[in-house]
Amino acid sequence: MNLSQTLADVGEQAVIREITAAAPSSLNGDDAAVLFAAPPNSRTVASTDLMVDGRHFLREWSTPREIGKKAILRNFADIEAMGARPVAALLAIAAPGDTPVSFVRGVAKGIAEHCSFYNAELVGGDITKSDLLVINITAIGFLGGSRAALTLDAARTGQKVVAHGAIGHAAAGLSLLQRFGRDLPAEHADLYPLIDAHCAPWLSPGRGVIARAAEVTAMTDNSDGLIQDCGTMAQRSGVHIDLDADAIQPDPLLHAAAAVLDCDPWQWVLAGGEDHTLIGTTAKQAPSGFREIGTVSRGSGITVDGQRPRYAEGWAGF
Amino acid sequence: MNLSQTLADVGEQAVIREITAAAPSSLNGDDAAVLFAAPPNSRTVASTDLMVDGRHFLREWSTPREIGKKAILRNFADIEAMGARPVAALLAIAAPGDTPVSFVRGVAKGIAEHCSFYNAELVGGDITKSDLLVINITAIGFLGGSRAALTLDAARTGQKVVAHGAIGHAAAGLSLLQRFGRDLPAEHADLYPLIDAHCAPWLSPGRGVIARAAEVTAMTDNSDGLIQDCGTMAQRSGVHIDLDADAIQPDPLLHAAAAVLDCDPWQWVLAGGEDHTLIGTTAKQAPSGFREIGTVSRGSGITVDGQRPRYAEGWAGF
Repeated sequence: MNLSQTLADVGEQAVIREITAAAPSSLNGDDAAVLFAAPPNSRTVASTDLMVDGRHFLREWSTPREIGKKAILRNFADIEAMGARPVAALLAIAAPGDTPVSFVRGVAKGIAEHCSFYNAELVGGDITKSDLLVINITAIGFLGGSRAALTLDAARTGQKVVAHGAIGHAAAGLSLLQRFGRDLPAEHADLYPLIDAHCAPWLSPGRGVIARAAEVTAMTDNSDGLIQDCGTMAQRSGVHIDLDADAIQPDPLLHAAAAVLDCDPWQWVLAGGEDHTLIGTTAKQAPSGFREIGTVSRGSGITVDGQRPRYAEGWAGF
Repeated sequence: MNLSQTLADVGEQAVIREITAAAPSSLNGDDAAVLFAAPPNSRTVASTDLMVDGRHFLREWSTPREIGKKAILRNFADIEAMGARPVAALLAIAAPGDTPVSFVRGVAKGIAEHCSFYNAELVGGDITKSDLLVINITAIGFLGGSRAALTLDAARTGQKVVAHGAIGHAAAGLSLLQRFGRDLPAEHADLYPLIDAHCAPWLSPGRGVIARAAEVTAMTDNSDGLIQDCGTMAQRSGVHIDLDADAIQPDPLLHAAAAVLDCDPWQWVLAGGEDHTLIGTTAKQAPSGFREIGTVSRGSGITVDGQRPRYAEGWAGF
């Protein structure tokens, strides 16, 4: 297929063939996807998420493959945040007719690549014409056994707060993109991992399942901002969460980026979202891959070292 | 809440509260929804579908509630077409900030209303700002027992073709809307059911499960056009399907609409989609609620009374 062809040139069926060639699954191709049987006594977990061109991604900053990878990461983080195992994804794309086929193929490749880390598959989808490019991913997971899912309302007084994944990196990457675009000046090449953290964030797959096995009770992912997401957990659980400033302090990469951009790296840590860091609470020791970042106590609200956080706002939908 | 308020006025959290008030579910409100345990030995079935403002619906023709109902019907028909039982839906909306809150509430009410016929619930979703209104529904169902799902490739020579639901009504309704808008002249009030068939189509819930129990082997729904959808089934199954012109002939309502619009009602029957009529094949008698409309034989392609169909085109995505 000619790489410069558009969706309107090739038509719906050819686009679907491109997607299923890039992200093959034997479960795809009928009115609906019938998943492999879940292990006995398991429950199905589902989450959905929209990405709008110009709002959740910019095509001049992110490659199609990165957009696909990030779309899966965002959704699978929500499945992991319940302590469940992602097993399948559905992709729905609304796209202008002049969208290059190569864009859709790239997104599908990114999806397949990121799904493969979870042994998950792209099992179905929908594609339709639209004046605006919108990508919707639905993630499906299985939660094995009878132990409770890791819910926002299950943080308990006396527990510690634990986290898996970087905090503030995606927001710092966004700030760098806003200043320099995708082409970082050569003298700042060491900051490139922050750009990656924004365009194609990464979590070690399976940490949600590990956390549930290790008796984490509450969990969420840092999608809207650390203070906002921990605040939601505190509010829903009816507890106070205090974060340890030492444990969450900006790392050298964030300090370096802040020096370049002449800003306060704490803003990225406290108010930046999209890291999809898993944040949980447990009375036991931190599960493998997690570190302690705070404590849960009686009361309400969220503090850092007992103080009101310097930055508290987060992502706002409207 | 003031009915004239917009999404931008009230913000994301208030919109989510409106949606969950209109379509309540105890499974909603966390990072992902954990469904009730499926019956033993059942498989999860999933399908997703986008509706774009101005392309899949027009707000001057359809009420928000109808848009919500149709969104669920479209998706649940895909679940039923596998022989499965719809149990849950996820709603993702991308909407301009000036969208009235009442619109989103109406969509959610329509979703809840239609879900209730299936004992299904709206278990999760996403809402985000966008320059264009796009509604995505993901449907989840359970397929009980070890019998095969009703796939497009399972039509067999010697079977009869059976159908549940009207054929051509949604397309006739669209033609009426294109001519008269929503306000049918009083002398044509008897045609209003065709408008309904377009704006809020209806299938008797559970027919897919019944069909599977009654040994239907292949099934799809008439979403893109009868000839196109049956043609897909014939092609995927490697068979020839012949439809019985008497069995699918335009009913009096279609003839009446065709007389008003001075057109051929066969176009609606053969090329009109969006009825979501369930179409299956079986070697047994037609299941309860289904009627015979054709036969499956050796060969390929699709005919009507042995002839090439007069209209064969259908919905094209691009």
